[in-house]
Amino acid sequence: MSAFSNGDVFVGETLGTAALILLGGGVCAAVTLKKSKAVNAGWLAITFGWGFAVLVAAYMTGAKSGAHLNPAVTIALAVKSGDWSQVPLYIGSQMLGAMIGAVLVWLTYLGQFQANKEPTLGIFSTGPEIRNPIQNVVTEVIGTFVLCMAILTLSPALGAGGTAVVSIVVVSIGLSLGGPTGYAINPARDLGPRIVHSLLPIPNKGGSDWSYAWVPVVGPILGGLAAGGVYNALY
Amino acid sequence: MSAFSNGDVFVGETLGTAALILLGGGVCAAVTLKKSKAVNAGWLAITFGWGFAVLVAAYMTGAKSGAHLNPAVTIALAVKSGDWSQVPLYIGSQMLGAMIGAVLVWLTYLGQFQANKEPTLGIFSTGPEIRNPIQNVVTEVIGTFVLCMAILTLSPALGAGGTAVVSIVVVSIGLSLGGPTGYAINPARDLGPRIVHSLLPIPNKGGSDWSYAWVPVVGPILGGLAAGGVYNALY
Amino acid sequence: MSAFSNGDVFVGETLGTAALILLGGGVCAAVTLKKSKAVNAGWLAITFGWGFAVLVAAYMTGAKSGAHLNPAVTIALAVKSGDWSQVPLYIGSQMLGAMIGAVLVWLTYLGQFQANKEPTLGIFSTGPEIRNPIQNVVTEVIGTFVLCMAILTLSPALGAGGTAVVSIVVVSIGLSLGGPTGYAINPARDLGPRIVHSLLPIPNKGGSDWSYAWVPVVGPILGGLAAGGVYNALY
Amino acid sequence: MSAFSNGDVFVGETLGTAALILLGGGVCAAVTLKKSKAVNAGWLAITFGWGFAVLVAAYMTGAKSGAHLNPAVTIALAVKSGDWSQVPLYIGSQMLGAMIGAVLVWLTYLGQFQANKEPTLGIFSTGPEIRNPIQNVVTEVIGTFVLCMAILTLSPALGAGGTAVVSIVVVSIGLSLGGPTGYAINPARDLGPRIVHSLLPIPNKGGSDWSYAWVPVVGPILGGLAAGGVYNALY
Repeated sequence: MSAFSNGDVFVGETLGTAALILLGGGVCAAVTLKKSKAVNAGWLAITFGWGFAVLVAAYMTGAKSGAHLNPAVTIALAVKSGDWSQVPLYIGSQMLGAMIGAVLVWLTYLGQFQANKEPTLGIFSTGPEIRNPIQNVVTEVIGTFVLCMAILTLSPALGAGGTAVVSIVVVSIGLSLGGPTGYAINPARDLGPRIVHSLLPIPNKGGSDWSYAWVPVVGPILGGLAAGGVYNALY
Repeated sequence: MSAFSNGDVFVGETLGTAALILLGGGVCAAVTLKKSKAVNAGWLAITFGWGFAVLVAAYMTGAKSGAHLNPAVTIALAVKSGDWSQVPLYIGSQMLGAMIGAVLVWLTYLGQFQANKEPTLGIFSTGPEIRNPIQNVVTEVIGTFVLCMAILTLSPALGAGGTAVVSIVVVSIGLSLGGPTGYAINPARDLGPRIVHSLLPIPNKGGSDWSYAWVPVVGPILGGLAAGGVYNALY
Repeated sequence: MSAFSNGDVFVGETLGTAALILLGGGVCAAVTLKKSKAVNAGWLAITFGWGFAVLVAAYMTGAKSGAHLNPAVTIALAVKSGDWSQVPLYIGSQMLGAMIGAVLVWLTYLGQFQANKEPTLGIFSTGPEIRNPIQNVVTEVIGTFVLCMAILTLSPALGAGGTAVVSIVVVSIGLSLGGPTGYAINPARDLGPRIVHSLLPIPNKGGSDWSYAWVPVVGPILGGLAAGGVYNALY
Repeated sequence: MSAFSNGDVFVGETLGTAALILLGGGVCAAVTLKKSKAVNAGWLAITFGWGFAVLVAAYMTGAKSGAHLNPAVTIALAVKSGDWSQVPLYIGSQMLGAMIGAVLVWLTYLGQFQANKEPTLGIFSTGPEIRNPIQNVVTEVIGTFVLCMAILTLSPALGAGGTAVVSIVVVSIGLSLGGPTGYAINPARDLGPRIVHSLLPIPNKGGSDWSYAWVPVVGPILGGLAAGGVYNALY
């Protein structure tokens, strides 16, 4: 992990996670908000939107910080390498970036948010279709495990194309495993925007559902730990 | 085929086929089950979901076992190489992995399955729109032949990108040839989850349609054999 | 053009164009026919289906014959190279392959065709939304010009990835220029299946619209000639 | 920027921007106009259509001029390099090409335009869902900033694949940031076709909304300038 300087890690992860959430939260805004050209574009738009958000953010910042953009990925890589020294810096930068990204979504769709009449938490953070914390954690563990295993086993032969593969992995997880909880698979992606949602002056924005907030943090962390452990055992 | 040790073949094919069915069965669950965010996302979601499932699973395990993930592919490659020594190990691992993957789909969507009120076999295994075993076998032979020919003729110049090409081949077969039977094109993908479907405690799950079960086994095997033979004759 | 032996050109273009039409006609069958799982999957399915059909067919046969799979492409490349010696062989093989492919679509969807109650020409060949031969020719010229220019200018730096780029070019032409005529952009793709449509015993199949048949032959040929000429002038 | 001769810049940018607008405007025509096979294909078709338009145009002309195809990109690259000598030539060629492309859209869909009964500006140029010039400028600045940062930070390791990545960046911006204004993110893409719209003899074509015309020019220019500045500060 020490391949990148602390300064580069801070810039790369903050900028990259901001871009990830701007584009990922953006597609949720685009599909959800009234008076958006993309309204009702549907689940395919959301899953490709998030996958391509990863692609844009990761290509933009991969050379700076390796583009983890996700505490679960940082943790899985730390389990693999055994080096935890930069983990707090990575996670802190990801949280900061995620909050900046959520503010940028709000700025991009400011007119739509000002005219808002319905709960908007779904644009910022995930929530379950059937609320059952243990089941919801399991779903998030499985999704994050797939993501982190795919990243840990990424062939060096892919070279610069590896980032594109990871972005398709994210589309795949969304299409296949996203149905029950909306696939946070990234604690910063969920917690950062939830904090911003609770602070922004959006009319009729509804609650921030803090009772669920631990699920998309704990589930992905467990998934990242599990992927690191399985990787070390099998590879 | 002897490029991989027996242990690596077992780990790679079991893990890879489990990932394939988790993500492939997962998209069927996502689109079919009530209280899923992806409900009614449609045929494009299913075909891209299965294609990207191949991509994720194959990149994750290609270095272990070559990522056949499909008895028909294993057979086609054996016809090409003339070496059948690891074929039973490959197919056994694929069957085991497919069953594990089907259980993981059930775990991921546990709340949705517990609330289930309709037949669920379509999430696990394929079935024909018009039941006519000979016609259904022909459709599966044609689909599998295309898949196996594409794999057999894959240019070495593609390098690590070859896996991505195969995943698009699978999307293509789904879009173009999947209409009549739901394109098993893989005996393990169909039979393994069908066994799991018959065993899982899902309310109102309906029957496992064992009278059709031989079609998506025999059709793909014939398709793989045919592709191997045509390849050896023409290339 | 002489980089490939006559035998390889025959095998490659026949097999490749058969695969192209099996998958391209197949997606039209999948989306159109009743009792198909893909019915009403829509225009995105059709355009990606045809683009990926090009990808599968071209990767399968590129090493044999260069995978023209289209008389307009063969003509554009002949204008560029000045060598017309193998043009008749290429076009003859493409026509034969296109007819084989159309028969395979019929076999794949045999049960659906046997139960057919509506005109089926749209599964085999193109037709205009607004019938105006000169305008329809212009639309086909423009679409084919884009396709052939993209192929003629394809960077050698793309290597084996060039085929994937061409397949996306075909998706792009479908999405953007396919609205008025259904984008034949390939005389063999249209004329071969039209002949087969007129011969196959499909109930209620409707007419084969021979009065329009010259448009998707002449338009693409003019487009290919124009692209070759512009390329030679500008590059 | 001086890697390309003035003549090549003129040919490449004119031809490339014409192809971009033919395919980008084309997908808007395809989805909007009555008697088009793609009518109502929806937002996914539009966003992929524009992204793939970039792909086709950029691969076709990248070797000629670097394929900026967008004054905002030209400006961002000039800020990065400090060399503004060819900027007027680039922008002039882009404007010319955009107008040619808009005429080609009209030719491709001539029958549909002749039968037109509704306002058609949306096929040529962008417009806001909620009219608020400052907010609309902000949205365009953010979208263009993402595009230009992605291009400025594009890894040389991507090689010829970089163009494909940029085309997916454009899909991503469309899906995620396109809801409020229709994402011009390119002054030539908006102003050139708007001029053509005001001149073409289309029945019932409606107004060309000149009061909004400055927004999709100023916003993208500011976004390109900002991206260049941030890039120089951080990288």
